[in-house]
Amino acid sequence: MRHGLIIVNTGNGKGKSTAAFGTLFRAWGRGMRVCVIQFIKAETGNWGEIRAARKLQIEWHTLGDGFTVLSKDIEKTANRARHAWELAQEKITSGQFDLIVLDEMTYAFHERWLDIAQVIAWLQEHKPAELHLIVTGRDAPPELIAFADLVTEMREIKHPYTRGIKAQPGIEF
Amino acid sequence: MRHGLIIVNTGNGKGKSTAAFGTLFRAWGRGMRVCVIQFIKAETGNWGEIRAARKLQIEWHTLGDGFTVLSKDIEKTANRARHAWELAQEKITSGQFDLIVLDEMTYAFHERWLDIAQVIAWLQEHKPAELHLIVTGRDAPPELIAFADLVTEMREIKHPYTRGIKAQPGIEF
Repeated sequence: MRHGLIIVNTGNGKGKSTAAFGTLFRAWGRGMRVCVIQFIKAETGNWGEIRAARKLQIEWHTLGDGFTVLSKDIEKTANRARHAWELAQEKITSGQFDLIVLDEMTYAFHERWLDIAQVIAWLQEHKPAELHLIVTGRDAPPELIAFADLVTEMREIKHPYTRGIKAQPGIEF
Repeated sequence: MRHGLIIVNTGNGKGKSTAAFGTLFRAWGRGMRVCVIQFIKAETGNWGEIRAARKLQIEWHTLGDGFTVLSKDIEKTANRARHAWELAQEKITSGQFDLIVLDEMTYAFHERWLDIAQVIAWLQEHKPAELHLIVTGRDAPPELIAFADLVTEMREIKHPYTRGIKAQPGIEF
């Protein structure tokens, strides 16, 4: 029987979301039913990964509004993140998926828009045993790391911005 | 103008190749021309990522023979890795690609099947300026890190094998 893993990609480096999308690609290759819920990324973005998902008819929800620390209406951002979790709960219990990516969800814990203890308690009760979940984002809370099966920290060793090279389409977004 | 990045995903954790495949997915979403050359992975594998690539008609070469430290015929493995580099050189200079993934290439440096100084000198002379390259694998040599634009270390924080959970199809392979 399949053992649904709780996977966490955290750290200050690149590759947290990207590795989640790589897993999605791999799972999709095996005919698994996959879904992405993005907690932060703005709906209006025209990201390479969203274009790819559209081409492949992968279910993909962008529920954030492009949160930054300078966001003018933080309560609106918080509400969008809470709405993303409600949608995630619906998808998790739907029985329609084998793998769900909760992209940049950790920010919602960090900003206290969501309570980590409540989220874990809900998952323990409601997550189907076979369903794989991937949670990405910086500063994963210790409770989430304790709860997870597979945790990887992506550490930045060297970044092109520091060499004056701009973000490259198709590579970084 | 596009600045072709040299990207290195290294470290002892999961997600080195997976993040490369995520970038591939993203770049493919933008209509970029992508190609993968795997230095170690055996041709006979029926991996989720290869199935996905086949569905998307992405050019994908598996030139390894599933190298392990217990491999019986190490010279054969070495020759396959050298052949992978020859193919990579051909693809790099072909003008047919925007992004090429050199998956698990670092093992070839580590095992001294390829000379890192020679490879870098060749890239400096022959790599088109706009072409992005991603090199993955443990123990990336310092020369490669110095040469790269973007380097991420994937660190294992927690792994399900240590909890007695087997590798899960579609997630880890």
